[in-house]
Amino acid sequence: MGDKKFSIIGGDLRSVKLAELIAAEGKSVNIYGFSNAGFEIKLKQSNTISDAINDTDVVIGPIPFSNDNVFINAPFHTDKIYINEVFKCINKNQLFIAGRISEKISHMAQVYNVYTVDLLEREEMAVLNAIPTAEGAIQIALEEMPTTLHNSNALILGFGRIGKTLAKVLTGMGANVYVEARKYSDLAWIRNYGYKPVLLSELANTVKSINVLFNTIPSIILNNEILKALNPNCLIIDLASKPGGVDFEKAKELGLKAIWALSLPGKVAPVTAAEFIKDTAYNIIEELGV
Amino acid sequence: MGDKKFSIIGGDLRSVKLAELIAAEGKSVNIYGFSNAGFEIKLKQSNTISDAINDTDVVIGPIPFSNDNVFINAPFHTDKIYINEVFKCINKNQLFIAGRISEKISHMAQVYNVYTVDLLEREEMAVLNAIPTAEGAIQIALEEMPTTLHNSNALILGFGRIGKTLAKVLTGMGANVYVEARKYSDLAWIRNYGYKPVLLSELANTVKSINVLFNTIPSIILNNEILKALNPNCLIIDLASKPGGVDFEKAKELGLKAIWALSLPGKVAPVTAAEFIKDTAYNIIEELGV
Amino acid sequence: MGDKKFSIIGGDLRSVKLAELIAAEGKSVNIYGFSNAGFEIKLKQSNTISDAINDTDVVIGPIPFSNDNVFINAPFHTDKIYINEVFKCINKNQLFIAGRISEKISHMAQVYNVYTVDLLEREEMAVLNAIPTAEGAIQIALEEMPTTLHNSNALILGFGRIGKTLAKVLTGMGANVYVEARKYSDLAWIRNYGYKPVLLSELANTVKSINVLFNTIPSIILNNEILKALNPNCLIIDLASKPGGVDFEKAKELGLKAIWALSLPGKVAPVTAAEFIKDTAYNIIEELGV
Amino acid sequence: MGDKKFSIIGGDLRSVKLAELIAAEGKSVNIYGFSNAGFEIKLKQSNTISDAINDTDVVIGPIPFSNDNVFINAPFHTDKIYINEVFKCINKNQLFIAGRISEKISHMAQVYNVYTVDLLEREEMAVLNAIPTAEGAIQIALEEMPTTLHNSNALILGFGRIGKTLAKVLTGMGANVYVEARKYSDLAWIRNYGYKPVLLSELANTVKSINVLFNTIPSIILNNEILKALNPNCLIIDLASKPGGVDFEKAKELGLKAIWALSLPGKVAPVTAAEFIKDTAYNIIEELGV
Repeated sequence: MGDKKFSIIGGDLRSVKLAELIAAEGKSVNIYGFSNAGFEIKLKQSNTISDAINDTDVVIGPIPFSNDNVFINAPFHTDKIYINEVFKCINKNQLFIAGRISEKISHMAQVYNVYTVDLLEREEMAVLNAIPTAEGAIQIALEEMPTTLHNSNALILGFGRIGKTLAKVLTGMGANVYVEARKYSDLAWIRNYGYKPVLLSELANTVKSINVLFNTIPSIILNNEILKALNPNCLIIDLASKPGGVDFEKAKELGLKAIWALSLPGKVAPVTAAEFIKDTAYNIIEELGV
Repeated sequence: MGDKKFSIIGGDLRSVKLAELIAAEGKSVNIYGFSNAGFEIKLKQSNTISDAINDTDVVIGPIPFSNDNVFINAPFHTDKIYINEVFKCINKNQLFIAGRISEKISHMAQVYNVYTVDLLEREEMAVLNAIPTAEGAIQIALEEMPTTLHNSNALILGFGRIGKTLAKVLTGMGANVYVEARKYSDLAWIRNYGYKPVLLSELANTVKSINVLFNTIPSIILNNEILKALNPNCLIIDLASKPGGVDFEKAKELGLKAIWALSLPGKVAPVTAAEFIKDTAYNIIEELGV
Repeated sequence: MGDKKFSIIGGDLRSVKLAELIAAEGKSVNIYGFSNAGFEIKLKQSNTISDAINDTDVVIGPIPFSNDNVFINAPFHTDKIYINEVFKCINKNQLFIAGRISEKISHMAQVYNVYTVDLLEREEMAVLNAIPTAEGAIQIALEEMPTTLHNSNALILGFGRIGKTLAKVLTGMGANVYVEARKYSDLAWIRNYGYKPVLLSELANTVKSINVLFNTIPSIILNNEILKALNPNCLIIDLASKPGGVDFEKAKELGLKAIWALSLPGKVAPVTAAEFIKDTAYNIIEELGV
Repeated sequence: MGDKKFSIIGGDLRSVKLAELIAAEGKSVNIYGFSNAGFEIKLKQSNTISDAINDTDVVIGPIPFSNDNVFINAPFHTDKIYINEVFKCINKNQLFIAGRISEKISHMAQVYNVYTVDLLEREEMAVLNAIPTAEGAIQIALEEMPTTLHNSNALILGFGRIGKTLAKVLTGMGANVYVEARKYSDLAWIRNYGYKPVLLSELANTVKSINVLFNTIPSIILNNEILKALNPNCLIIDLASKPGGVDFEKAKELGLKAIWALSLPGKVAPVTAAEFIKDTAYNIIEELGV
C-alpha cells in the first residue's frame, strides 16, 4: 500500500482530516475542493480537478458524495463542483471511493467508466461509526438529563450495531441497561452480555421506570400508546435514520423531550471518523488488490 | 404455557435438573429413564415409556439424544431404552425436542410420524451455552496457569459465539485480550469492543508474547509453524468441536501444554445448562403455538 | 426516620429538588427562600423563616451555605436572608445541616447555640459527588474533543475519589486509562484495577501521547515543563479546587486548550446531587440518633 | 538498582520464581536453601549460607519466614536452616526482607544487628496479592457451583482489599454483586462502583437469594442466625485469616458447603506472586535508598 497515490476531492471536515492522516503516513495526497479549509499540516491544493486526479491510484470523494446528484458535497469550496467534471477526469484503472453513491450517480459513473465503491455500504465502516454515534448519544444524554447516567435506567430499542455499542458504553458508565429486541437469538445475546432483555410485549410496562430511551430502529415504535406509558421525565434520543422511530408530534403534545440526532460521527468526532474512512478505504484497496 | 404437560425421557444431570425446574413452576412433568438418579424434589417416575408420554404435550429427550442411533442417551437408567420404543409412544400432536438429532434418527422420526426439533440447532441455545463454555474455559485456565489471568496476554482464535463471550469475560478478569479473525467486519467489532485485533498474517508474531490461547475454530490453525512460534509457557485450550484446531501431536512434541475441552456446559454448570434448555424449549413451544 | 420534620432554607436547584424528594417520601417539609423557584410538586412556602423552622427536627441550609459569611446562598429568593436571622430561629434540639460552614459561621452558630454539621465534610457525600463530577468531566471531553474517547489515551493526575471514579468511567467508555499517583499503594491499586500506572518522574514522557488529561490534584503539577512536553492537541480538564493544578497562563501561551471545571454535581445533575444530599442527611440523622 | 546484588535464602515456589525473575533481569543472585528445587534457568546454588549472603546488598527470606521461630521455612531444602545461622551472616549494611517476621524473630534480628523489613506489612504487597486471592476464590466457585457465576447473586462480606478486588472480578464475570459493609463511606463507594450495598441489618434477609458468599472479615459474621437464613444451595467461601468468619461446625450441621481458602496467591499463581514480591522488594530498596 506504501506507494499508492491518493486524491481527495471535496467533503467536510472529515475529508480535511483524512487528507492530513494519509499525508502524515508519508503517502502522496492531492487535494481539490478545499479553497476555504484550514489544514493543520501543509498540503498543496491542486489548481484543477484534473491536476488533482491525474496520476493517482485512488480518488476519495465526500461523505455523502452529493446532496442533489449534480454537484459534489464540498462545503469548504468557493465554487460548485459538478459530479460529471470529477468523473470525466477518472480513468478505468483508478478506484473511486465515496459515501452514499445514489443510483443516479452510479449510472453516471458507468457512463464515464468509473469504478465506484460506496463507503457507507461497508459493514466494517458501519460498525466503527457506531462508536462515535454512541458517544454522541451519550453526550446528548449528559447535557439534557438532570440526573447522572450512573444508576439511571436506560432503554435501547434495537440490538443492531448502534444498539450493541450503546449498551456497552452505557453499562460502562454505570447505567442499568435494558434492551428491546425481537429475535430470540438477540434476546439471548442481551442476556449473555448482562443487559436486561425486554420483549416488545413488555415495552409499555417497562418504559414507566425508564430515565433515558435510545431508539435505533427506523420504524415508529414509540407510538401514542408507548409514549403515554412513558415516565414523563424520560429523555428520548432517536438515532434512527428516516423515518426515525418516534412520533415527535405526539411526544411534543405529551410534553416529552425528544431529540432526533443524526449523522453524529462527523459532528462529534471528525478526526476519528476520518480514521475510520481511511481504514475502510485501505481495506477496499487491499481487497481489490488495486 | 401454564397448562402444558411435559414428559422428560432420559438424559444426563441436565435432564434431571430440567425436570426439577419445570416441576418447580407448578407444571405437570412425567419422567422416565432415571432409575438411578437423585432428585432434589419429589418427582414420580413413570413405570413405562408409554405412561410417561401419554397425555403430555411436549416430550423432551436427552442432549445428545443418542450416541449410537439405537438407544437413547440415558446414563441414569439401569436398562437400555430403544429410540424406536420412544417414538412409538409419541403421537403426531405431541412435540418432541432433543439435542443433536442425527439424520438417521430424523428418518426414524418420520417413519413414526413424530415432529422433532433439535435444541442444538437453535441459535439462542448456542448463544446461551457460550456462557458456561466460557466459564469452563476460564476455570481450566485458572487451574493450569502459574500466573494470574489478570494482566496476562490472552489470545482467542475466532470471533463467533464462544469467542465473543470469552473475550468479554477475560476482559472482565483483567486480561489483555487479543482476538484473531478474518472478516473486516469482525475486526471492526473487535476494535469496537476494545480488544486487540489480530490478522491471520500477524499470528505467528503475536503468539510469542501470549500466555494463554483459546481456540474456537474447528480447523487446524495451530499448525507446526504457529506452535513453534508460541511462547513455550503458553497454555493452549481448544474449545472447537472435532476436528479441533490444534495439532496435538506436534504440541506434545514441542512440550506445549494443550487441553481439548468439549461439552463444557453440562459439565461445569448443569443447573444453568438445564435452565437454558428450558428457556429454549419454551421458545420453541411459543413459536410453534403448540 | 418516618416522622422527622424537615425545613429547607434557601439554596440552588439542588435544594429545590431536595425538598421535592423528601416531600415525595411523605415527610413533612417546610420551605423558605424560594420565592422565584419552580417546584414540580406542590409545596407550601412559609411566610417567615421562623414559620419554616418552628416545630421541625432538621433544618437543611444551602450548599455552599454562604458566599460572604453574612447572607445565606439563596439564588431563588427575591430578598436577602441574613445568616443570623436563620440561626436565631433554630433551637438547641434542632439539627442544622448545610454545606461548607466556614469557621466564622461556626462561631456564629455557637453564639446562637446551633448544632451544625457540614455536608461537605462527610466522606460518603464526597464519594457520591465524585459520580456527577466524573460525568461532567466526560461531558466536557465529549464536547471538546474532535476524536472519540474510545481508544483515546486519557491521563488522570491523582487517585483520590474523583480520580478513581473517572478512571472507572473512562475505562467503561473504551479509553486507555493512565493514572499518575505517588504512593506505592495507590500505584498497586492502579495496577489492580487494570489502569496504566504513571510515576511522577515519567510524567513528561507519558504526556506526549495523551489525548485528554484530567487533573484532580489542587497543586500545580502541570507546570511549564510538563505543558511543553504535552501533545499540542491534548485537551486539559482541571477538576481540582483552588488553586487548581494547571498553569493556565502558560497553557494559553502554548496554545493548549485548558478548561477549569468546578462544582460540577450541582450543574450537571442537580436531581442526583439532591439525592446524595438527602441520603447523607439521613445518615447524619441516623448516626446522631436525632 | 541495576547493580544491586541479591541473596535468596529458602522459601517455597515463589522464592524459586523470584530468584529466576531477578536473574532474568541480569542481576546477580545467590541462592541457598533449594537443594531439591527445580529451576527453569541455570542458577548456581551456594554451598553455605555465608557464601550466599557475603558480598550481597539485599537478602530475601521466605514468606512466611518461619513457622516455628527456630528454622526458616525452606520446603525445598534437605536440611533444616536455623534462623540465627542466617542472621549471623548478615551485616548491618545489608537489608533483610522476608514475610511475616514475628515479634520473637524481630528481637533476634536486633540482637544480631540485622535491619529487617516485613513484606506482608507493605500495603502495596497486600493490594497486589488481592488479585491472585480473588482469582483463587473465583476458581473455587467455578469448580464447586452447579450454576454459572454469570447472572448468579454473589455476596461479599467486607470491602477491604480482597472485597474490592473480588467485587470487580465478579462483576466482570457477569455476576450480580452485593457487598456488605458498615461504614457509610464504604457503602457510598459500593454504590459508586455499581454494586448493591447491603447493611448488616439487612444481611439475614439478603442471604436468602444468594448463590455464592465470599467472606473477607476475620470475625464470625456467619453465625447461626445468618447461616439458617441462607439459601441452602449457597456456596460459602471464607477468605478471612484466622479465626475466619464462618461457624464451620454450624454450617456443616445445616448441610451447607463451606470452604476455608487461605494463602491463595502462592498456591494459584506462584509466578505472579513472585513478581509482586520482587516489585515490593524493589520499592523497599528504592524507598530506603539502600
